[in-house]
Amino acid sequence: MKSLYPTYDVIVVGAGHAGSEAAGAAAEMGAQTLLITMNLDAIAKMSCNPAIGGVAKGQLVREIDALGGLMGRVADKSAVQFRMLNTSKGPAMWSPRCQSDRALYCTMMREELEKKENLHFRQDNVVDIITVNEGKRAAGVRTSTGQIFEAQSVILTTGTFGNGLMHIGETNFGGGRSGERASVGISAALEKLGFEVGRLKTGTPPRLDGRSIDYDRLEIQYGDEDPSPFSFMTDSLPSREEQLTCWIGFTNQKVHDMLRSGFDRSPMFNGTIESTGPRYCPSIEDKINRFSEKDSHQLFLEPEGWDTYEMYLNGFSTSLPEDVQYKALRTIPGFEEAVMLRPGYAIEYDYFPPYQIRRSMETKITDGLFFAGQINGTTGYEEAACQGLMAGINAVRKVQGKEEFILKRSEAYIGVLIDDLITKGTEEPYRMFTSRAEHRILLRQDNADLRLTDLGHKIGLASDERFERYKTKNQAIDQLHDLISDYTVYPEKMDPMLKEQGTSILSQPVKAKTLIPRPQLSIYNLFEADAELKEKAHAITDDRDVFDQVEIQIKYAGYIEKEFEMVEEMRKQEDTIIPDTLDYGKINSLSAEGTQKMERIRPETLGQASRISGVSPSDISVLMVYLKN
Amino acid sequence: MKSLYPTYDVIVVGAGHAGSEAAGAAAEMGAQTLLITMNLDAIAKMSCNPAIGGVAKGQLVREIDALGGLMGRVADKSAVQFRMLNTSKGPAMWSPRCQSDRALYCTMMREELEKKENLHFRQDNVVDIITVNEGKRAAGVRTSTGQIFEAQSVILTTGTFGNGLMHIGETNFGGGRSGERASVGISAALEKLGFEVGRLKTGTPPRLDGRSIDYDRLEIQYGDEDPSPFSFMTDSLPSREEQLTCWIGFTNQKVHDMLRSGFDRSPMFNGTIESTGPRYCPSIEDKINRFSEKDSHQLFLEPEGWDTYEMYLNGFSTSLPEDVQYKALRTIPGFEEAVMLRPGYAIEYDYFPPYQIRRSMETKITDGLFFAGQINGTTGYEEAACQGLMAGINAVRKVQGKEEFILKRSEAYIGVLIDDLITKGTEEPYRMFTSRAEHRILLRQDNADLRLTDLGHKIGLASDERFERYKTKNQAIDQLHDLISDYTVYPEKMDPMLKEQGTSILSQPVKAKTLIPRPQLSIYNLFEADAELKEKAHAITDDRDVFDQVEIQIKYAGYIEKEFEMVEEMRKQEDTIIPDTLDYGKINSLSAEGTQKMERIRPETLGQASRISGVSPSDISVLMVYLKN
Ligand SMILES: Cc1cc2nc3c(=O)[nH]c(=O)nc-3n(C[C@H](O)[C@H](O)[C@H](O)COP(=O)(O)OP(=O)(O)OC[C@H]3O[C@@H](n4cnc5c(N)ncnc54)[C@H](O)[C@@H]3O)c2cc1C
Ligand SMILES: Cc1cc2nc3c(=O)[nH]c(=O)nc-3n(C[C@H](O)[C@H](O)[C@H](O)COP(=O)(O)OP(=O)(O)OC[C@H]3O[C@@H](n4cnc5c(N)ncnc54)[C@H](O)[C@@H]3O)c2cc1C
Repeated sequence: MKSLYPTYDVIVVGAGHAGSEAAGAAAEMGAQTLLITMNLDAIAKMSCNPAIGGVAKGQLVREIDALGGLMGRVADKSAVQFRMLNTSKGPAMWSPRCQSDRALYCTMMREELEKKENLHFRQDNVVDIITVNEGKRAAGVRTSTGQIFEAQSVILTTGTFGNGLMHIGETNFGGGRSGERASVGISAALEKLGFEVGRLKTGTPPRLDGRSIDYDRLEIQYGDEDPSPFSFMTDSLPSREEQLTCWIGFTNQKVHDMLRSGFDRSPMFNGTIESTGPRYCPSIEDKINRFSEKDSHQLFLEPEGWDTYEMYLNGFSTSLPEDVQYKALRTIPGFEEAVMLRPGYAIEYDYFPPYQIRRSMETKITDGLFFAGQINGTTGYEEAACQGLMAGINAVRKVQGKEEFILKRSEAYIGVLIDDLITKGTEEPYRMFTSRAEHRILLRQDNADLRLTDLGHKIGLASDERFERYKTKNQAIDQLHDLISDYTVYPEKMDPMLKEQGTSILSQPVKAKTLIPRPQLSIYNLFEADAELKEKAHAITDDRDVFDQVEIQIKYAGYIEKEFEMVEEMRKQEDTIIPDTLDYGKINSLSAEGTQKMERIRPETLGQASRISGVSPSDISVLMVYLKN
Repeated sequence: MKSLYPTYDVIVVGAGHAGSEAAGAAAEMGAQTLLITMNLDAIAKMSCNPAIGGVAKGQLVREIDALGGLMGRVADKSAVQFRMLNTSKGPAMWSPRCQSDRALYCTMMREELEKKENLHFRQDNVVDIITVNEGKRAAGVRTSTGQIFEAQSVILTTGTFGNGLMHIGETNFGGGRSGERASVGISAALEKLGFEVGRLKTGTPPRLDGRSIDYDRLEIQYGDEDPSPFSFMTDSLPSREEQLTCWIGFTNQKVHDMLRSGFDRSPMFNGTIESTGPRYCPSIEDKINRFSEKDSHQLFLEPEGWDTYEMYLNGFSTSLPEDVQYKALRTIPGFEEAVMLRPGYAIEYDYFPPYQIRRSMETKITDGLFFAGQINGTTGYEEAACQGLMAGINAVRKVQGKEEFILKRSEAYIGVLIDDLITKGTEEPYRMFTSRAEHRILLRQDNADLRLTDLGHKIGLASDERFERYKTKNQAIDQLHDLISDYTVYPEKMDPMLKEQGTSILSQPVKAKTLIPRPQLSIYNLFEADAELKEKAHAITDDRDVFDQVEIQIKYAGYIEKEFEMVEEMRKQEDTIIPDTLDYGKINSLSAEGTQKMERIRPETLGQASRISGVSPSDISVLMVYLKN
């Protein structure tokens, strides 16, 4: 059967968080793009918690935004509360997070996508990937009604829908997410082409009727006084008073006992679910099982939106039988009368172990076929979105005959995530942490634009407006940096302030720059103490982000420099490309385990090879010598 | 298994148009109500055209509103365009209609429902109705996860989902609506209890990408300059400039030829679909097949919402193979480059032939079980909504031990609809028309509040605020009526105006009232001609609805009076109750056909009996005599 329809440059299958970014980026970069999804009324739906960002995830969102992606802007517009996490720690740990209006997020994402001229939509269910050249080249997709859509690149982002099976206690039923059907067909088709398919699971807590909660027994949690946006393009956000509040509650031993009473009927413990769930978003039954010494766990009660009383009980993910969920829930202080709108459940779904993709997100088996999002074994909207973005970018570049767009581990969390996926695999759903990034002092949320906007603009994704904004900011940073470096401050003006801040006074005039590294001082203290300095600074800019940036750059200059040196040291390995065709078996003196692992994963660089567990430092030396000749 | 949950007064299964009204009404009237639906994010979703109202349907919406239901208010708030249809005809034909923002309608309905204190929500899939007393009494429902929810009354409103099977050309697949799963289990369970289950079908046109249309080749259709709301509680609406426009196009012979080329692969013509579709919303293939003499059909291109370019092609419903849909579409002038976002399809679904319900919407077989909406064989959101409302009201009254709330054919279109369903059955999906209402001159959209708000308030549904508004209006009407009846107008003031309007001048002073019946004159002409009259009128009220109402009452007084006389004549039959237990077989001299029909349908009144086809006037006389003794 031939296609009725025009051949597209890029087809994106699935409009979750990965698919939305992929389609948005591809269309923005000029590709004729078709986004096919099962339900056009549920684009970028949050399957689980109504929140974007968080530790390390917030950094991902800032990076997506800096490159010109959509998630940051949509999150800013649809949020009901903003909080910067970890502000008591160093700037590398600061992480923006928001609570979102779940329905509004979908609406706003659809609106953003509809603005893209080259983007076309189609509601349909894809059941097969069409290939040519014996599966070596993707050519399009087939839908459940038998329609064929052709394209040069195909991006698969079907999330938790692949053969999705939901569990609540001893009952289970097919579906991709509560209330939605599963996606059947694609996994089998890809298996035939030689792809390995695995199985993972995740879960979600019950949704509650906010009217049934006794808020007096919970702690209130306000949004930030002075909220920070995700997007470098957002200029204003709701004030603390305008934002909604969240609530904190606690489980206790009684709750745990109640939960334990259902363990024999739990699909997690009775063998029904064999696949692995996310270690770092464990279900409540997992938590009390693994940390039996803890007699209380924290729970966050989060609003689902501006105009609904539906609430999300973060921390209480469960697939225990419904009666157990319900009784345990009602044992939690403040939840004695709680009413469930939807019970919690777990879902098992297909994924493709990610050693099967390249850093560009293209699969190694099938040219022009890209995988992004949860199907690569990750968990989380932000993890999915950034993969979608990279897949979208690279799918277009493939069509345009341009080289792959790769972010290094030293450039972005996105680079860390993709490199980790490929080299380390995912035995359990992968989520981002700051600890995964060895260069995290460089990969801060505050400098995502400085790291990435230029790149995003060069590839035709970040808009001119965004680029201008970035340039203006960058210039101001340079000027302010120069000012602070050259400007001399005198004891007369500084000492009273220094005393007040509890740090030693000056014995002679010094450059302003030398004071900033002191932990007690901020750039604003200097401004306070020296009106002329302040005036000169404000002559450059009024943008607080610039002041903060320069302060961070100076305060942490030592660490940052050292980190750059380390990056430099590793650059050689990172830049040494291993040819696709390398036959590891032919290289003498490689360890057996090293050979086996590298043959499976086929690292693209020496750096990647060095991060594969089982590949030894001596394997790397051998390889380095081999590749030189 | 016992229920974990409290026993509710009323459970509503399904949150479509019927279910939303049922749940809203039941909760508002004080019943603890549980609304269970498959997807809480798709409440009151419009499966087909993004529009509310229209000929006879607009009257239904006004009636729902007058009683205190939700549809009118939600339609007003979410509409993108308003038009009063049939304004060139008499006031009995005037029919309000709006284009809706499909997504906003869902959101707003959910918001309205969330305001009801006694209403509880649950996302779940009901698979069985629980009964006691050998199926003679409803007791609750069971969900797919095995949970039991108990209630005194259960209202079933599962729409097109019952064993839903969708068709596009030669492919078909299960589902309740595009992108949503079917509902399986309930029909079989009810069949076991003795219910008859039938099969009907309906269809929907493709959705288009508005960017791909050549609007220059279409006619533009604006909204009304001075839009009329559906709800008697709505005070302001967007102006014509703020409203969106629609577009009109036309098929031609070439389009028809293209469509015909697919008839052999059409599920409608090749025997795949055997069930009957709505005669009055035919598919395009039906139209060109049945009216082969017509060489063009009108199509309306309607926006799906404020912020989307998705468009709905009203008049082009089809289940032809996708290639035929697409090629035919692109043959329509203006649609040469049209892009489909979702293809058209047909759906077959289960319904329960409605002789099985009473006028209260309660089933005759199972006490406390109510059916409402599409499952009674109707089609249309408004038809569904008004049934839901009546079922909600009666389910509560049942629980409260109050008598059934019935609307007569002479009181409301709602009464006509329900009476038709029961007495006439539905061989094909039933939709409302003005011609179905013999007393339509009484059942105008403009007087729905005057007919019904008092009733709605008495049963505890229409709010006090609504009742006050109605009373104020009613008083003003009386006062203005008195004024116009008593006030004398003089030739000096009237004649110039009468000449201008082209009607004969006065030979002597007359009561203002006597002029209004003249077809050339409106009440406003009198106001123009006589400033004192105008002033007196405005001293009573500034409400144009009052002026219009009085004008209509006076202008059509003759018809209205005659109609009331006819109602009076029929009252005796309508009020004669036939006992539930009547054994028609025992009554001598009833015709065989009459006996058989009445035994099946079991009419509740002599009036109903008289409307059953096959029951003769002599059967009615026999029955009347029999019932007297
Ligand atoms: C029950 C549950 C609990 C979760 N819990 C957590 C958690 O605790 N923490 C966390 O970080 N993350 C959690 N997640 C994961 C999070 O939802 C995902 O990581 C994220 O949504 C993945 O985005 P995605 O774009 O890859 O896929 P999804 O958001 O799943 O989107 C997939 C899209 O593909 C479409 N689609 C699928 N198959 C087809 C097909 N054949 N044809 C056309 N379209 C198709 C779907 O309609 C959907 O639009 C949970 C997910 C679920 C379902
Ligand atoms: C393809 C299509 C074309 C149509 N075309 C037209 C047309 O041209 N003109 C016209 O006037 N009307 C048309 N209609 C009909 C119109 O959509 C319906 O008349 C109207 O929506 C019926 O309202 P309802 O409330 O009875 O059911 P629906 O609106 O169908 O709602 C049913 C609800 O019940 C829920 N539900 C179903 N089963 C279960 C279960 N087991 N457990 C829990 N919840 C359940 C569903 O999730 C849904 O919320 C069409 C419908 C379809 C699907």
